[in-house]
Amino acid sequence: MAASLHAQLIGIDWGTSSLRAYRLAPGGAVLESRQRPWGILHLVDRDFDRALSETLSDWVSPQSPLPIIASGMIGSRGGWREVPYAACPADPGSLAAGVCVIESSLGPLHLVPGVIQNGTEPNVMRGEETQILGALASDRALAREALLVLPGTHCKWVVVQAGLIQRFATHMTGELFALLRDHSLLGRPAQDAPHHASDADEAAHAAFLRGIRTARDAGPEGLSGRLFTTRSLFLTGELAAPHTLDYLSGLLIGEEIRSALAAPGVPSKGPVLLVGNPALCARYHLSLGEFGIHHAQSLEDTAPCGLWKIAEAYGLVPRLAQP
Amino acid sequence: MAASLHAQLIGIDWGTSSLRAYRLAPGGAVLESRQRPWGILHLVDRDFDRALSETLSDWVSPQSPLPIIASGMIGSRGGWREVPYAACPADPGSLAAGVCVIESSLGPLHLVPGVIQNGTEPNVMRGEETQILGALASDRALAREALLVLPGTHCKWVVVQAGLIQRFATHMTGELFALLRDHSLLGRPAQDAPHHASDADEAAHAAFLRGIRTARDAGPEGLSGRLFTTRSLFLTGELAAPHTLDYLSGLLIGEEIRSALAAPGVPSKGPVLLVGNPALCARYHLSLGEFGIHHAQSLEDTAPCGLWKIAEAYGLVPRLAQP
Repeated sequence: MAASLHAQLIGIDWGTSSLRAYRLAPGGAVLESRQRPWGILHLVDRDFDRALSETLSDWVSPQSPLPIIASGMIGSRGGWREVPYAACPADPGSLAAGVCVIESSLGPLHLVPGVIQNGTEPNVMRGEETQILGALASDRALAREALLVLPGTHCKWVVVQAGLIQRFATHMTGELFALLRDHSLLGRPAQDAPHHASDADEAAHAAFLRGIRTARDAGPEGLSGRLFTTRSLFLTGELAAPHTLDYLSGLLIGEEIRSALAAPGVPSKGPVLLVGNPALCARYHLSLGEFGIHHAQSLEDTAPCGLWKIAEAYGLVPRLAQP
Repeated sequence: MAASLHAQLIGIDWGTSSLRAYRLAPGGAVLESRQRPWGILHLVDRDFDRALSETLSDWVSPQSPLPIIASGMIGSRGGWREVPYAACPADPGSLAAGVCVIESSLGPLHLVPGVIQNGTEPNVMRGEETQILGALASDRALAREALLVLPGTHCKWVVVQAGLIQRFATHMTGELFALLRDHSLLGRPAQDAPHHASDADEAAHAAFLRGIRTARDAGPEGLSGRLFTTRSLFLTGELAAPHTLDYLSGLLIGEEIRSALAAPGVPSKGPVLLVGNPALCARYHLSLGEFGIHHAQSLEDTAPCGLWKIAEAYGLVPRLAQP
């Protein structure tokens, strides 16, 4: 337990489905982490304080305090306390200025705000802002100008300039895929002939690529009139039942990329960074290549470093000397 | 029952959720109709013959026969017998040539094929081809060149030229709306605050229009990055919970129209005909107006006339003298 000597912060990424806690050394290095299935939608009794205590009691106590900071849906309307959004452009300083402190059994808990992009088509994030700031800390060149893509249920495309989260878009690709797979006509063939995707499965890979290319080549028409090809290609025998979902996944990710790159001012020529689950980032990396973007890098689990950055800006931990 | 003296054909529109039967006079005039909840997905015992007999036994019997013709999903893989598709371009003659005759307790049942558009992105319909041919019979000018839109679960956009179904696209707008309403994050606010849409509700109407315009003005970017505004406009208080679904409906219909009109060779300057449920056609009529198409006409229940046309081409009923 020698590492515990150096812990200076407890960081928590507390989302909809799970809670991930980190014991952090200076700079956000993870000394130890743990995950609990106590996301805000899964805590039926809404006893957030007990969930926090049970997760952290051997790491911190009122007798041996450590500052605690949390980001994600725990600060949403359905979480422990709603923390008002910080507006774009946002950086560690503006997020720290919006931190809301609540009392927990383990001492003060610092809740990080999400980020809102105001306008006629507003956009919001909670939790991703922390991952983004953590990713930017990994390479100073990224902070100048970069395009960050955070795949997932609600995928975020984020334009960073001068160290600030300038603007972003949300694509509900992961949620749409799950809906169509589980509840639509398109998901039925695969339900009747279940199949476990394998990277070694060339036909699955080909179906995924075909989906991406169909979406890409649709151009401005978009996906609306092509989603149904998942059905018609199955009916005509061109797609086997187990591969219909690979094709559908390609269609949806392809349309997301096509649409995101069609937006004005998306800096796709400069650094492009994928942040998140490695398997999903790999699918996006492959898909971006079909759009001529071959230089994307990938990072996993950048929340700890982002939590450190915000804690630092807030003054919860000592500011590191600039290297 | 005097009308029964003139019945010359029993026509059936037999789909996924229901069976609609018509006793038809020459030309397809409906003498009597009835509807049963025995669509192919609802007939658990798959006893199609009994469903047919119970629906029609007082209209027709082996002792007093009438020809019977049916179109729709009853001729699909999951129906009574799979009838191979007729290829585009299609007309009453080519559909009649593909009719499949099966024996039922009431005598021969004539199953109309669906239509397939072959190619790298194939497309299929079953049932709509009959509605389309019925609609064309209503006005000879339409058959020269027209754009037909059949709103619904799987909305069809159909280009008719020289009396032929030349090509078509499928937009899964109705199914997507139901999925998002019932199973996604976007549907939750309205579930918590249920609301019955009313034409008199100005705020609902405004939300629907806002959705259409948001999709229209997105241009080539399409809906991918804007679907989530259904959530963000609710979170920012710009959309009240009961109106989130009106906005979502506008977004989806708007994206369908934007996408369909962006396809090459869509004759939107000539006759435009909406075919189907009147309330849904009215929503599409309003939406088309936002895209500058104000001249769309609407027709309801054109299947009987289409069934007559195909039966006539098959020789099941005497061909009417051309007027």
